[in-house]
Amino acid sequence: MSSQVVPKTQKAIVFYETDGKLEYKDVAVPEPKPNEILVHVKYSGVCHSDLHAWHGDWPFQLKFPLIGGHEGAGVVVKLGSNVKGWKVGDIAGIKWLNGTCMSCEYCEVGNESQCPHLDGTGFTHDGTFQEYATADAVQAAHIPQNVDLAEVAPILCAGITVYKALKRANLMPGQWVTISGACGGLGSLAVQYALAMGYRVIGIDGGEAKQKLFEELHGEIFIDFTKEKDVVGAVIKATDGGSHGVINVSVSEAAIEASTRYCRPNGTVVLVGMPAHAYCKSDVFNQVVKSISIVGSCVGNRADTREALDFFARGLIKSPIHLAGLSDVPEIFGKMERGQIVGRYVVDTSK
Amino acid sequence: MSSQVVPKTQKAIVFYETDGKLEYKDVAVPEPKPNEILVHVKYSGVCHSDLHAWHGDWPFQLKFPLIGGHEGAGVVVKLGSNVKGWKVGDIAGIKWLNGTCMSCEYCEVGNESQCPHLDGTGFTHDGTFQEYATADAVQAAHIPQNVDLAEVAPILCAGITVYKALKRANLMPGQWVTISGACGGLGSLAVQYALAMGYRVIGIDGGEAKQKLFEELHGEIFIDFTKEKDVVGAVIKATDGGSHGVINVSVSEAAIEASTRYCRPNGTVVLVGMPAHAYCKSDVFNQVVKSISIVGSCVGNRADTREALDFFARGLIKSPIHLAGLSDVPEIFGKMERGQIVGRYVVDTSK
Amino acid sequence: MSSQVVPKTQKAIVFYETDGKLEYKDVAVPEPKPNEILVHVKYSGVCHSDLHAWHGDWPFQLKFPLIGGHEGAGVVVKLGSNVKGWKVGDIAGIKWLNGTCMSCEYCEVGNESQCPHLDGTGFTHDGTFQEYATADAVQAAHIPQNVDLAEVAPILCAGITVYKALKRANLMPGQWVTISGACGGLGSLAVQYALAMGYRVIGIDGGEAKQKLFEELHGEIFIDFTKEKDVVGAVIKATDGGSHGVINVSVSEAAIEASTRYCRPNGTVVLVGMPAHAYCKSDVFNQVVKSISIVGSCVGNRADTREALDFFARGLIKSPIHLAGLSDVPEIFGKMERGQIVGRYVVDTSK
Amino acid sequence: MSSQVVPKTQKAIVFYETDGKLEYKDVAVPEPKPNEILVHVKYSGVCHSDLHAWHGDWPFQLKFPLIGGHEGAGVVVKLGSNVKGWKVGDIAGIKWLNGTCMSCEYCEVGNESQCPHLDGTGFTHDGTFQEYATADAVQAAHIPQNVDLAEVAPILCAGITVYKALKRANLMPGQWVTISGACGGLGSLAVQYALAMGYRVIGIDGGEAKQKLFEELHGEIFIDFTKEKDVVGAVIKATDGGSHGVINVSVSEAAIEASTRYCRPNGTVVLVGMPAHAYCKSDVFNQVVKSISIVGSCVGNRADTREALDFFARGLIKSPIHLAGLSDVPEIFGKMERGQIVGRYVVDTSK
Repeated sequence: MSSQVVPKTQKAIVFYETDGKLEYKDVAVPEPKPNEILVHVKYSGVCHSDLHAWHGDWPFQLKFPLIGGHEGAGVVVKLGSNVKGWKVGDIAGIKWLNGTCMSCEYCEVGNESQCPHLDGTGFTHDGTFQEYATADAVQAAHIPQNVDLAEVAPILCAGITVYKALKRANLMPGQWVTISGACGGLGSLAVQYALAMGYRVIGIDGGEAKQKLFEELHGEIFIDFTKEKDVVGAVIKATDGGSHGVINVSVSEAAIEASTRYCRPNGTVVLVGMPAHAYCKSDVFNQVVKSISIVGSCVGNRADTREALDFFARGLIKSPIHLAGLSDVPEIFGKMERGQIVGRYVVDTSK
Repeated sequence: MSSQVVPKTQKAIVFYETDGKLEYKDVAVPEPKPNEILVHVKYSGVCHSDLHAWHGDWPFQLKFPLIGGHEGAGVVVKLGSNVKGWKVGDIAGIKWLNGTCMSCEYCEVGNESQCPHLDGTGFTHDGTFQEYATADAVQAAHIPQNVDLAEVAPILCAGITVYKALKRANLMPGQWVTISGACGGLGSLAVQYALAMGYRVIGIDGGEAKQKLFEELHGEIFIDFTKEKDVVGAVIKATDGGSHGVINVSVSEAAIEASTRYCRPNGTVVLVGMPAHAYCKSDVFNQVVKSISIVGSCVGNRADTREALDFFARGLIKSPIHLAGLSDVPEIFGKMERGQIVGRYVVDTSK
Repeated sequence: MSSQVVPKTQKAIVFYETDGKLEYKDVAVPEPKPNEILVHVKYSGVCHSDLHAWHGDWPFQLKFPLIGGHEGAGVVVKLGSNVKGWKVGDIAGIKWLNGTCMSCEYCEVGNESQCPHLDGTGFTHDGTFQEYATADAVQAAHIPQNVDLAEVAPILCAGITVYKALKRANLMPGQWVTISGACGGLGSLAVQYALAMGYRVIGIDGGEAKQKLFEELHGEIFIDFTKEKDVVGAVIKATDGGSHGVINVSVSEAAIEASTRYCRPNGTVVLVGMPAHAYCKSDVFNQVVKSISIVGSCVGNRADTREALDFFARGLIKSPIHLAGLSDVPEIFGKMERGQIVGRYVVDTSK
Repeated sequence: MSSQVVPKTQKAIVFYETDGKLEYKDVAVPEPKPNEILVHVKYSGVCHSDLHAWHGDWPFQLKFPLIGGHEGAGVVVKLGSNVKGWKVGDIAGIKWLNGTCMSCEYCEVGNESQCPHLDGTGFTHDGTFQEYATADAVQAAHIPQNVDLAEVAPILCAGITVYKALKRANLMPGQWVTISGACGGLGSLAVQYALAMGYRVIGIDGGEAKQKLFEELHGEIFIDFTKEKDVVGAVIKATDGGSHGVINVSVSEAAIEASTRYCRPNGTVVLVGMPAHAYCKSDVFNQVVKSISIVGSCVGNRADTREALDFFARGLIKSPIHLAGLSDVPEIFGKMERGQIVGRYVVDTSK
């Protein structure tokens, strides 16, 4: 593999300011710093967070010009001078958490996502909407050789995120977990991880296509919010008292508020999506009397990543992707904004 | 003690409907059911929840006529036919949680406060604003003989409640806990329990009298919200990054919302008061990025009660009470409504 | 169901002293105390602990004459005067933990098996080797109506015990658990519960029949200790570093000692069987350097019982039983002593 | 501080083979690697593990010639080329865990002490029995400027170790912890940390001098094993049922075995010392019936280090040291072997 020739230039999707034009153009292939690997990105997922980055919805200081994307799978083609644990030819995953200080009180115990010095792929570090991307060697994910690189791409953000959220729900196998927004890109992965973890799964989503997908994923009970007028009552009835855990993939404030109502006493409501400027409103009396926990969950650490990839590599998680080309990113963003996407788009960086 | 004569009638504070007149009058001494003990209540605390009961603020179905009060300490004078573990002359504490089914999924593991069949002293069962009160023998608290009965009374509700809340905050000794509303009846107990548990304590409250009390209790850092314009910033600075835990004794919505801002990443905000119709509003982005937990905490179980009493019996907790007579309850309610109470009123049922 | 006629006498297996003759004879049907239900036992499992009771191996003070057996499933035919939550015709399970004080520090939080006042079915209370047995109404298990009573019997002791042991191992779905003694009565249930809980399962046992059973149960890796000379090395290799958890169903001291060697750093070794006079020997250096936990696990509480039954009722656990008659108990004890039993014997009390 | 002159040679205690002569001699000052800092060690504690290293008691592959010592406090005088987070003049602590891979499944979540690539100060890396020592910048401890460097030295191994062991005991404030070997170097620190963490402390040790020290440290109950014939019974009586946690600082097999007897049901016995070739023997019946956990605890991670130092810096822990010179190390080893040491020796490297 050491003979691999890395070109000088490559294709990328670049923008120069918040909401600026998304240009598909030639740019220089970056050089890895001493702590970095250079990855030939074969496939990159397209995540809702990419849209948030482009719009500048979140209070992060972005770099410009910026290449977005933070779900990339590819092959290591070059190593920085201080890199350990990687060799050219290894399969690497690039995820949103590009690098952290590794020395603060959060990094010390594996809570890197709370590191105040976090470097975010596609936000403060050029991302995976390019053919060759650099990544911090400590945080980049080791991917087993036998895995499909297009299908594994969404695991690197969506998969890790929902897996971590399920861990945060602190459930025992055999308990009920409700996935609010069960059949989108995040939700359909959450359903599968939850089943692999031994939980009983209720899905809430709207429409018959969603119901069909939920059943194909072997979810146990589907509640169609376009038909069921009393979602809270329906969950409580189906679970004989409330859902032990809830994963709020849906970012609707009303759906989140409802989840605090159908959560079982002593149960846990997990917030995982990050709608801009949205609030979780919880009736204090209800929350105190039922002793409910509402917890935020933000991406995952290296252990979560390794574990989420392991479930995938063992064949327990299917990734329902749509393939497109890198040059299609602007169009995919458009569909995303119009709510026209079912499942997850993954782009082939060579197209 | 078996020679103790129990009278037929006694004094009590009774009301006949929500917000009805609080009558200090003679009523019959109740007869214990087979599962109950009859307690000669010597002292009863007066709690804000008594006011909520009288006003019908909470969605509980009250009994009428109703004798309120749920922080009583006294002597056992009679035993129901099936009672085990008690003898006449024992010192008993009566608390809000009078009885539960002991068989549901919540009672099975000691989460009785979530039992759907909960019987509440001073709500669905006549309480401690009388000289002789009945109490479920299983839930009544055993109080050591050497304890001051007036001072221990507030431990039976306020003490247990804040102690449980501190347990729910899931802290390690040496970590910071902020008590929002540090110098009222609940707060001043919370400060003391927190110190006895090895936590570092920040108190938030308003005014110099409050600051003086906080310092007498050996709290570490006081923030006066009447002077400090940036309470969030002040907590973050004092703790070098945010408070690991927060106990929201204050029921102000703004104070609760602020607590989600000064809570340290991965920390825990505990909701413990139950303002009627109030919401905890949490900025989803902030909560997710910081992975904060917001948890409800409702009274405590028998183990919490035993532990909270043990801290008190060991002399680690001082109960800053004002003594009054049972006939003063209406006047105390008035002061409570006008916000004129510092510390906790305890009434002598013989006066 | 209220018309059910309860006879005056019944068949039972009785013995009058430690190691005394096991007599199959007519005895009076017992009368339930106020806190008890009377159960028409249809089927009872035969457990190794029954043999320990007969031999007086354990430091419990037995009652005599004694009717053994503590895995009974049947129909409620009579209620004591204070019983709540049961009606005639309900399906009830009788388990080893017949009753406890419900008031000590252990009972308060659901650790009844540590209650110093524990009453043990088949030890200090007549058990299920009879047609009609009394059981404490609080501890008797509610069994769903649709369940096979012969197959559910072993769940009431063996099932609960291994399920609790798996909970004590404190694993995450996706982690490795090794069942040492994977294919006996306890082990084969442990394998199934472990799989239903999302764990990856290694089984250690001896012989091809055992391997075949393990594979039928869908266990992942089988290690035959009659062929593999380096069991410790084999587990470490299969798991790439050691098993996260170990359930020692086997009571061999050597097997237990080995489990402390193949347990992964920070992992948990669970002791669940109770060989008389046996020791768990752990090399202190190994245990400290690897930070391993060795934990004892004793039966389960009411929540564990409910959950273990729920997995069974959902069809996730098969109970590989051999049916016999109540009169066969002495012969089954003989086979048990000679190590001739594969799976679990269940006796029909009517035969 | 940047003008600090680092000499070419220095004094050190060196040995060339297991049990070889301990030579106090001139050696070259080492040069820090890119990832290392060079620390002017002012003081170094002398730990029992240094003796184990010299004797080759443990199955670690030592480097030779070897400079021992792993409790050093001093000033940073030089930085390797890749070092972040340190500057010349900072106060640094050198501890046993010099460096690990930071990438394995253990390092990922802060369990560095289980890293298979662990580099141990005074074992595989030259230690603190020299005036100038190198240390991995990631693992070296930041020490606040206002701290006494001689007194803080023992915190860097003994302090961290007992603090971590107390965390592993998983206690709640108000519960009982027994320190077996309460008044030696480790034990006297354990007593103080336990009190600062809100636990009630029983100390077991022998003799009146030990009892006096225990009382000066404000321990609650002292049991003198030279006088008390039934230590197990005495602990159970004092704690009304057994100690919730036990820290076995004593490495006597009999004392460890006893600790499994006086541990409260559901309690935790912590093994922390590492006697060569010793076993923890636990009666399986006792451990299962009482559901006791026996856990190994090995040093601590960076968070444990920071926290243990924070308790010390807040003045809650006194370090009862004896000062000597670096050249006295061989003599101190002799006293250690003859059991003549009370408290902890700390050597001034300039003498």
